[in-house]
Amino acid sequence: MTRVGATTAGSRRAVGDMFADIRTSLEGVERRLQEELRSRHDNVDQVVRHGYRLGGKRLRPALLLLAGQATGELTDAHETLAVVVEMIHTATLVHDDVLDEADLRRHVDTVNARWGNETSVLLGDFLFSHAFYLAATVGTAEACQLIGKSTNRVCEGEMQQTLAEGDLSLSEDDYYSIIDAKTAELCACCSELGARFSDADDQTVAALASYGRNLGMAFQIADDLLDLAGDEQATGKSLGRDLAKRKMTLPLIHARDTLVDGPRTSFLALLEQGTQVAATVATLKELGSLDYARGVAQQFAEKAAADLSCLADSPAKATLEHLAAFVVSRQG
Amino acid sequence: MTRVGATTAGSRRAVGDMFADIRTSLEGVERRLQEELRSRHDNVDQVVRHGYRLGGKRLRPALLLLAGQATGELTDAHETLAVVVEMIHTATLVHDDVLDEADLRRHVDTVNARWGNETSVLLGDFLFSHAFYLAATVGTAEACQLIGKSTNRVCEGEMQQTLAEGDLSLSEDDYYSIIDAKTAELCACCSELGARFSDADDQTVAALASYGRNLGMAFQIADDLLDLAGDEQATGKSLGRDLAKRKMTLPLIHARDTLVDGPRTSFLALLEQGTQVAATVATLKELGSLDYARGVAQQFAEKAAADLSCLADSPAKATLEHLAAFVVSRQG
Repeated sequence: MTRVGATTAGSRRAVGDMFADIRTSLEGVERRLQEELRSRHDNVDQVVRHGYRLGGKRLRPALLLLAGQATGELTDAHETLAVVVEMIHTATLVHDDVLDEADLRRHVDTVNARWGNETSVLLGDFLFSHAFYLAATVGTAEACQLIGKSTNRVCEGEMQQTLAEGDLSLSEDDYYSIIDAKTAELCACCSELGARFSDADDQTVAALASYGRNLGMAFQIADDLLDLAGDEQATGKSLGRDLAKRKMTLPLIHARDTLVDGPRTSFLALLEQGTQVAATVATLKELGSLDYARGVAQQFAEKAAADLSCLADSPAKATLEHLAAFVVSRQG
Repeated sequence: MTRVGATTAGSRRAVGDMFADIRTSLEGVERRLQEELRSRHDNVDQVVRHGYRLGGKRLRPALLLLAGQATGELTDAHETLAVVVEMIHTATLVHDDVLDEADLRRHVDTVNARWGNETSVLLGDFLFSHAFYLAATVGTAEACQLIGKSTNRVCEGEMQQTLAEGDLSLSEDDYYSIIDAKTAELCACCSELGARFSDADDQTVAALASYGRNLGMAFQIADDLLDLAGDEQATGKSLGRDLAKRKMTLPLIHARDTLVDGPRTSFLALLEQGTQVAATVATLKELGSLDYARGVAQQFAEKAAADLSCLADSPAKATLEHLAAFVVSRQG
């Protein structure tokens, strides 16, 4: 993977500003993450603490907290569960890095680059099990069930995706099924948990779960677009990683299904190579495939915003609306 | 890893006979495992079902069920939790195989040999999350907390071990600390859960947890001995895998600490090579290091049996006593 130099400080700040209303709770989540990710064995402690630095923009904790605040009052359980979902997300990132053999994530050395794949696998397992332990401390088995079921679908989705690598005939429906499981599922779980632990009624809980799912779909499609047409400086990732793994994403599927005959054969040959980022992106632009994918992401974002119509107006609701717009417009 | 031809049918039968009293429950566990390890996606289903075949002798489910039966009555919760602990154990085996790059486990192709490391990591994660989900279905958060905490210590122990590979100065105490976390912890969790879900009093629960821990210590020391002086046909594993990874086990630590001066330097040079199984074992025999380790395993087995003294006599108690003797005498 190409190393890129700049930081994503600008992008992080934009997200931070958006979450001003829940800043105190998010700071609490950061403190808890730092406290929980420790080991009494020095050498293990170093690895585990590194896990703390690998997390992303804390979108999932924010989603859970905002869903809780938009539907009721935030409790200690919300904060604990926000820590749990971030740990699970980090665990999947750490294991993704083993799979990707990535040596840089968000400008921080990945665990496998520093300590090897063995330690990465184990750190991911540590994060998973610690998350499940914490989820069990909120008093009922409900959170554990929801989180266990969601995480299981995430793993299933990741397996589907891995097994589909190199399958250039992947259908648009199969693509949606994969990103629904690997990304949207955990987002739906976050917003559902937020509402459930605010004692929202079943209809509101379902609306928030739907919001999270649509947001997750929009987020992943936008993420896949960034891999093709993003800014390496802003994302902190090299471009064309999906292409290199011959992983079919929405713009590629659209282009393949738009082309016929010779041009289609040439395009598939380009994908088979997996290295021609500029040439591939040129074709995608020409066929309107990037715009098509942006449009679909936009539709999911609009559905997410519409899911909030049952809620009374509040700053948290406004932020959730803002978040839906942000995930498709973000640059990193 | 060397492929070996024979099956461990004899060893499995010996274990099966020992568990005659809980046969119906163990058969229930097998059925549940087969039912649970499915996916509605065909390609994922194939991987997940393969996970079922990779499990061991079902010692952990048996331990949980026997502890339950020796302290009260078996319930549906016991069966569910027996499935949970076997899934967690299988998850650690699948991830161990990624770490070991082992291509044969119990004469069955490992997942990574068949589908690659990526799929192995994800299958392990699937097994972990499914286990935690199932643990949450028994009604209270207690099982999730206990299992999450134990699994977390298992991961910590495995990390400690991985980070200690190549450290030929590992102390005997550090060795015990590692195997306590990576192996004895989950055994203690099994027997504790068995007793807890039979509504045993706190003292009995603690005694059973101690039994499981001592049993696990005995089991792991015996397992490490089999890697040096076992029978490849009976274990289904090639010898000297720990040596090859320069992983210090009890006989090696004893020999190192017994030798001085030149012979010690020569022995460390032998360990540094990691390939001279016969020469290493000859030295261990000469120094009584294999016998020393066998003696320590025996002591843990005796402590385990003594932990049962608070229980009324019953066939389940007798089997637990028998099990303690078995784990140190087993050949595979």
